[in-house]
Amino acid sequence: MSDVVVIVSGGMDSVTLLYDVISQGHKPHVITFNYNQRHQKEIQCAKYHCEKLVPDHLIVNLGVLNELAESSLTRPNLPVPEGNYDEPSMKATVVPNRNMVMISLATALAISTKSEAVYYGAHAGDHTIYPDCRPEFVKAMDVAMKLCDWRRIELRAPYLRMTKADILRIGKTLNVDYNQTWTCYKGEQLSCGQCGSCRERLEAFEIASMTDPLPYQVGTNRKPLEG
Amino acid sequence: MSDVVVIVSGGMDSVTLLYDVISQGHKPHVITFNYNQRHQKEIQCAKYHCEKLVPDHLIVNLGVLNELAESSLTRPNLPVPEGNYDEPSMKATVVPNRNMVMISLATALAISTKSEAVYYGAHAGDHTIYPDCRPEFVKAMDVAMKLCDWRRIELRAPYLRMTKADILRIGKTLNVDYNQTWTCYKGEQLSCGQCGSCRERLEAFEIASMTDPLPYQVGTNRKPLEG
Repeated sequence: MSDVVVIVSGGMDSVTLLYDVISQGHKPHVITFNYNQRHQKEIQCAKYHCEKLVPDHLIVNLGVLNELAESSLTRPNLPVPEGNYDEPSMKATVVPNRNMVMISLATALAISTKSEAVYYGAHAGDHTIYPDCRPEFVKAMDVAMKLCDWRRIELRAPYLRMTKADILRIGKTLNVDYNQTWTCYKGEQLSCGQCGSCRERLEAFEIASMTDPLPYQVGTNRKPLEG
Repeated sequence: MSDVVVIVSGGMDSVTLLYDVISQGHKPHVITFNYNQRHQKEIQCAKYHCEKLVPDHLIVNLGVLNELAESSLTRPNLPVPEGNYDEPSMKATVVPNRNMVMISLATALAISTKSEAVYYGAHAGDHTIYPDCRPEFVKAMDVAMKLCDWRRIELRAPYLRMTKADILRIGKTLNVDYNQTWTCYKGEQLSCGQCGSCRERLEAFEIASMTDPLPYQVGTNRKPLEG
């Protein structure tokens, strides 16, 4: 049983990853980043699973990213783009270098917990939107991580070439409760069902022939793209 | 005149680097990290030079590193090791993965300021103490940085193969005021002259045939190793 660090946002990909890592017999130390995103519900979802599954869950404030960058994801006065993920509308939700920063801090935790790896849930759909979700970026960070301490630490992104539907199928076999995962970019009581993030989630459930247990403000979870 | 980010701690290496980068015609955006280290005086030194030289100086709180790790550098209840830099005594002053974290955040600033590079002052003497000052680590981070955004950002560590004495010689030609740089690991009124960091600094001045303008508690700045 080896110690590992898992970055869990509370979204469907990283929550599935946590269950997946545990099912493989690892002992996870979970780290969640709070960068004042509107969806604090995502963090509540991360807490929900961690309280059930792991002894130590660290929530790290990354408000500093606000000082370093502009982004509608963390600044309440900018509108969230609607529709599918496409440039340039999605660009407004990109926090610069978020993944490198999160992986670096997770690696610090890996050093102090003597963990052999850091897991994160980047998936194939992210590649075209986020430069720091590309396989070549993950590979480069893995090389840097193996050198940042005297002991080698690996970066593992097992969903890098999978779609969100593939991830859901894995989660199904692990009985992940997707009602306790949060995806919507808007910080409202119910998920909006309309933002790029909600639509991508609903589409993944549809492709995986699964029903999204989350309630939505608008539309159904079966035909999200017809509304 | 190209925009660049420079990581300036307020120590002699990074302050020299700032003057060096400016002398090369770059427009620096300076970032300084406050990780509750005992030597807040180092940050004051960074401020001193930035107020004179650059329009924007960002001081970023990295107290989060305290949560992620144990280190005598940031925890006031642990003693600071004395003597020269040697393992294992210096290990107590290592904040895990500090450089990767700082470089990642500096890179976020580089993205938002459209800077072409991040400069940091790692030097040859650091290699044997800090795994994340090794040339191969710098190279790996440079590769990752060129991939973390759609625009390429370089990591530049021009002192990587130089000694501290070499750096002082550069600083001399640039008229750097080393009285406004801080090196001591202890957070006292005067530099102690005895900790590994002070001794390394004093030795560098001696090798460069320069006089350290800083006042010290103990000994002289000429014969620090005979005390």
